[in-house]
Amino acid sequence: MGGDAPSLWLADRSELVLTPGKAHRLYRLESGLVRLYTLDDAGLGVTLRFVKRGGVFGEEALTGRPRRYFAEAMAPSVIEVLDPASMGDAELRALVTTLAAALDDVGMAMHRTATKQLAPRIAALILELADSDLATRDSDGLPVVRITHHQIAMAAGSVRETATKAIGDLARLGAIYVGYRKVTVRDERLLREAAGDD
Amino acid sequence: MGGDAPSLWLADRSELVLTPGKAHRLYRLESGLVRLYTLDDAGLGVTLRFVKRGGVFGEEALTGRPRRYFAEAMAPSVIEVLDPASMGDAELRALVTTLAAALDDVGMAMHRTATKQLAPRIAALILELADSDLATRDSDGLPVVRITHHQIAMAAGSVRETATKAIGDLARLGAIYVGYRKVTVRDERLLREAAGDD
Repeated sequence: MGGDAPSLWLADRSELVLTPGKAHRLYRLESGLVRLYTLDDAGLGVTLRFVKRGGVFGEEALTGRPRRYFAEAMAPSVIEVLDPASMGDAELRALVTTLAAALDDVGMAMHRTATKQLAPRIAALILELADSDLATRDSDGLPVVRITHHQIAMAAGSVRETATKAIGDLARLGAIYVGYRKVTVRDERLLREAAGDD
Repeated sequence: MGGDAPSLWLADRSELVLTPGKAHRLYRLESGLVRLYTLDDAGLGVTLRFVKRGGVFGEEALTGRPRRYFAEAMAPSVIEVLDPASMGDAELRALVTTLAAALDDVGMAMHRTATKQLAPRIAALILELADSDLATRDSDGLPVVRITHHQIAMAAGSVRETATKAIGDLARLGAIYVGYRKVTVRDERLLREAAGDD
């Protein structure tokens, strides 16, 4: 990279942008939404974290370790390739904060995965996505997440049939509306309670 | 902190050094071993990661988010309280690398937790501890981890009876020797295979 202008990478919705293997580059998401995940023994996705606008991924390049995860664009995304060697003090401080927040995100996801209940995990997932570039607002100002039950199941490490039941539970609770290829946050407070957030 | 000399904190083995709540400080482990964990609904520990000599924890203080985990010294530990505001370029770069490595550690732990098998998790745990200040060497040069079955169970998010069965499986495989309040790594390659490491 050296003194070149930052290089930008445009990813389509559902595009696989990184796969496990040798890691060389650090990336910052200018806009869009990226999911980092591994696959369990049954081939189900284990979501490590979501990278939102301003977030960083590919940090394993800084450690010399291989990348262990897949990265998928969940919305059309603009990705900037960073050169850590040329970062100044302010950029390094911002990177430290971003990585610290990512650690907190993964820690929360791990806690939810260990508690093994699907509905709280899906509630947390919808809250997370409602606060991302995947979400729009409906005419009442409610956040609408454009996602299928299959995608929700994959992101929550489950299968569609089971996820659909949990999504139905959240809808009956009054926390969300479920539409065709979309979920609307009807009552954020209820959804946070369902997610078990403090 | 300001321009003061770094403040050091000495923690005993099994001492609880941090609890969930407001976060103010960043910590670096000078020596010893610290486990970061949450509690699941059944009160079982969910280990987020181990902090080894040189590792950093308390990074949530940088994000303004509350701390969500407990930190426990698993060996006598010397903890330095850091002041991020006074860090120079080289220290910030080191911190970035440390946090990136921690993200990788939590990601791997999450992957193992999601796969839900206990023996690989315990194998990974023993490998991790064998490479820490909790370990010594026996007369044959093999790493000895001073830990009880109960502690292994807690760190792996299980109960003693179940953990003891998995530990027995690893011993029968020839990967470890099991002694009184200690585990010896008999064959690191076998133990890595059992952990499902690449």
